[in-house]
Amino acid sequence: MTEPEYGSDASSLNTVARKVPGGCVLNGRKRWPGNSSFADVLVVFARNTSTNQVNGFIVNGGSPGLKTSKIENKVSMRIVQNCDIELENVFVSADDLCQFFSGSCECMQSLAFSRVMAAWVSIGIAVGVYDACQRYLGERKQFGVPLAAFQLNQEKLVRMLGNIQAMWLLGWRLCKLHSSSKMTIGQASLGKAWITKQARETVALGRELLGGNGIVTDFHVGKAFCDMETVYTYEGSYEVNALIVAWEITGISSIRPTSWL
Amino acid sequence: MTEPEYGSDASSLNTVARKVPGGCVLNGRKRWPGNSSFADVLVVFARNTSTNQVNGFIVNGGSPGLKTSKIENKVSMRIVQNCDIELENVFVSADDLCQFFSGSCECMQSLAFSRVMAAWVSIGIAVGVYDACQRYLGERKQFGVPLAAFQLNQEKLVRMLGNIQAMWLLGWRLCKLHSSSKMTIGQASLGKAWITKQARETVALGRELLGGNGIVTDFHVGKAFCDMETVYTYEGSYEVNALIVAWEITGISSIRPTSWL
Amino acid sequence: MTEPEYGSDASSLNTVARKVPGGCVLNGRKRWPGNSSFADVLVVFARNTSTNQVNGFIVNGGSPGLKTSKIENKVSMRIVQNCDIELENVFVSADDLCQFFSGSCECMQSLAFSRVMAAWVSIGIAVGVYDACQRYLGERKQFGVPLAAFQLNQEKLVRMLGNIQAMWLLGWRLCKLHSSSKMTIGQASLGKAWITKQARETVALGRELLGGNGIVTDFHVGKAFCDMETVYTYEGSYEVNALIVAWEITGISSIRPTSWL
Amino acid sequence: MTEPEYGSDASSLNTVARKVPGGCVLNGRKRWPGNSSFADVLVVFARNTSTNQVNGFIVNGGSPGLKTSKIENKVSMRIVQNCDIELENVFVSADDLCQFFSGSCECMQSLAFSRVMAAWVSIGIAVGVYDACQRYLGERKQFGVPLAAFQLNQEKLVRMLGNIQAMWLLGWRLCKLHSSSKMTIGQASLGKAWITKQARETVALGRELLGGNGIVTDFHVGKAFCDMETVYTYEGSYEVNALIVAWEITGISSIRPTSWL
Repeated sequence: MTEPEYGSDASSLNTVARKVPGGCVLNGRKRWPGNSSFADVLVVFARNTSTNQVNGFIVNGGSPGLKTSKIENKVSMRIVQNCDIELENVFVSADDLCQFFSGSCECMQSLAFSRVMAAWVSIGIAVGVYDACQRYLGERKQFGVPLAAFQLNQEKLVRMLGNIQAMWLLGWRLCKLHSSSKMTIGQASLGKAWITKQARETVALGRELLGGNGIVTDFHVGKAFCDMETVYTYEGSYEVNALIVAWEITGISSIRPTSWL
Repeated sequence: MTEPEYGSDASSLNTVARKVPGGCVLNGRKRWPGNSSFADVLVVFARNTSTNQVNGFIVNGGSPGLKTSKIENKVSMRIVQNCDIELENVFVSADDLCQFFSGSCECMQSLAFSRVMAAWVSIGIAVGVYDACQRYLGERKQFGVPLAAFQLNQEKLVRMLGNIQAMWLLGWRLCKLHSSSKMTIGQASLGKAWITKQARETVALGRELLGGNGIVTDFHVGKAFCDMETVYTYEGSYEVNALIVAWEITGISSIRPTSWL
Repeated sequence: MTEPEYGSDASSLNTVARKVPGGCVLNGRKRWPGNSSFADVLVVFARNTSTNQVNGFIVNGGSPGLKTSKIENKVSMRIVQNCDIELENVFVSADDLCQFFSGSCECMQSLAFSRVMAAWVSIGIAVGVYDACQRYLGERKQFGVPLAAFQLNQEKLVRMLGNIQAMWLLGWRLCKLHSSSKMTIGQASLGKAWITKQARETVALGRELLGGNGIVTDFHVGKAFCDMETVYTYEGSYEVNALIVAWEITGISSIRPTSWL
Repeated sequence: MTEPEYGSDASSLNTVARKVPGGCVLNGRKRWPGNSSFADVLVVFARNTSTNQVNGFIVNGGSPGLKTSKIENKVSMRIVQNCDIELENVFVSADDLCQFFSGSCECMQSLAFSRVMAAWVSIGIAVGVYDACQRYLGERKQFGVPLAAFQLNQEKLVRMLGNIQAMWLLGWRLCKLHSSSKMTIGQASLGKAWITKQARETVALGRELLGGNGIVTDFHVGKAFCDMETVYTYEGSYEVNALIVAWEITGISSIRPTSWL
């Protein structure tokens, strides 16, 4: 969905789908889609020039006119190969219109679920960091005692655990709401924003606890610290998700500059 | 339990119970017991000179030798009348030994449950503040629009809501554990420490949202902001509870300076 | 300056000054002016109906038509007697037009200087809290050693000291700029916003360090904790000052909802 | 100075220097020395077996018995080539005893000055991030206006600027103290701890402001975010420096577990 010029303002996207015999032709540019350089299939969101709605389109990897180039120099979530994508008259057959994303509403629902997923990614990262830290503090000694024996380290470990329990419960509650089809878009955004915020604090505490060994990937924590930044920002930045929640609870949107005039 | 000289270090308490025919005689001083100036019955923790254990004793209000004086100048939880108490040869009949607190273990269990209660007090305070803020932001206008329309205010309201949902779920989980007799002392301490910490952040955000009207009690929020300080500190300060948790998860206590030597 | 309906949006004030022979007549309401119930002289900001500009007017205490009523139930800065004020055809003679506040620009300059003063109030409060805490931690013992011996307490005291040094230097720099007439309005706002924010964190840390004794005024810290809330909010709330700074450094104002359209 | 097993507890180092005719022989292991794989000269801290004091020794790059291996998988400060070092009977001639580090006191003074340097590294990083953010917010648009027009972004930029001004002034004050030979070890530690803590907050804010473009090095901010972690931890972690300050201001050391018994 994201384009070089439009991230948070996803609805302004410039990629267009024009009807042609037997299907559509897509033109535009995308930024960030994960693993798109070797994907068999890509789901591309584009503005349907007939209806002016944003729809999803299934593009086959290797289609003529599709060009992907790997985004280099990432410091976070390096295991995912994000790409810049160019679409120049890429043909999509009528069979490949994406049924699940045929309207803006479906897009929003899909984004909401992705937010729950992102929240859980950050819970997983935080739990992994906690485990690594607890082990490290028990094993490494300074001044003749385990690092786990120092008050300053203990308080951090405890704060991490409190955060994780709360994140976990909130994530679990979101899934309950989702599986009973009661989850609102605001609830998903609140879960994503709040959980990833706490996760970010949690992994930063873990990074501190590992001292120098927290800046190499060997002990997992340094890598997790960097990876969290992606999760904090994708699927709607903290700010955008917070403003979506605020819209739901106050009835006033402040996302677009003019929306409350 | 608390004494003028011993708060966090409750086990060092100086109040003693000496066996006499037909019961015990208590001597010592206490600080902070709530509403003790007009209570019919007080539960006093004292060191049994025969066993050197800390036990609970039921003291009747108005007993000879019992003197309570109200602690003045409180800025927090003013609705509770805390007192300084002096016990000078206060007689407790054998019938009034407190069965539920006859050993140190029972004391710890009782403290653990009080911590769950304290956590829920802070949840209640935070929810009340959220409600007051949401209403206030909707009603009060500046620059021609409700305060609820400004991004900076919206983000605060959302952060408060995220905190509250997480506090609530963690508090609920604690009750579940407690009612199935599985709650450990560390879990109670973690719940109390983490929930009151988040509640403190939450009411501080609320205080900000009310601007000048947040420094008078009329709008509830200013009062709640002050009251939270009591809840943050009583039933074990944040630090003591955090160190109790750390003890449970690392096997090492750093509460007493020498415990891990 | 502040009115019941207009705080941050000071320029919208409703109090008006109408020219009459020999001077002006003021009508309107004010909220919060400190010690105005017994002041000999009040400076009232009102919209000059001839020029539509906001000017300052000197009103003598006890003038016919001037009514002040003390704001009750304050939890912060109780030493100051804030009032709600009603002005009903209060006459101000031509001699009492306030020369220093004859234009909006002078008002802004005056507000800028008040912000430097507010910043220094908060520095004073924070320093007092630090002193009280350092003494308390050295004197009070738990588990057989002074509170000052515990890592968690030490780190807090150090964070307080770092904050205070930085606040002090920034306040000193502001005064240097002001005394050489180079201080911009944004610099004053940044100083006020940043310094009071750090002061607020500092006194909250101090409040924690005093445990139960931090909720009574006897040890100064509890009182300081409450007083800081006033300083954090008056002379422009943190948010309003931050947005004034942002206006200066980005060239874009987001204070009024429509200003950057 | 740092060894695989001893970081914060630098005084426990295991590397030893044994007197031999014409000089010393060094044995032990080091971890983290920057750019030591290609350095012409290394300063190695070792325990003098004759005096039991820690002294500095000048070791020539390429000396027999000296083995350096680059630490791989760093996520922070990748421009510096840190190494694991092994010293096996490395000869240091009497001429190469390091005059400036002949006693523990000189070591401490040297560490103190390194801390001032580390503080300034973090100031430089934070200023670079601020510059990049201010430019980015002005250039990139969402919803039709520059990112600089949104309140949530503005407040972050302002908080960054306030932090930077305070860090800068504190760093400047430290240099003044140092150049007049009045800087205490505690002052250096406070400067290092406080300034790098604020810098860490500042670059994290910058990282948020850049959204997705904050996770690649192309816009500088992502790289700076990762690099700050090294500065936060080296030259004494935040915690160790904080406890050194606390020692100076309370007279009680809590760094070693037993020091205050």
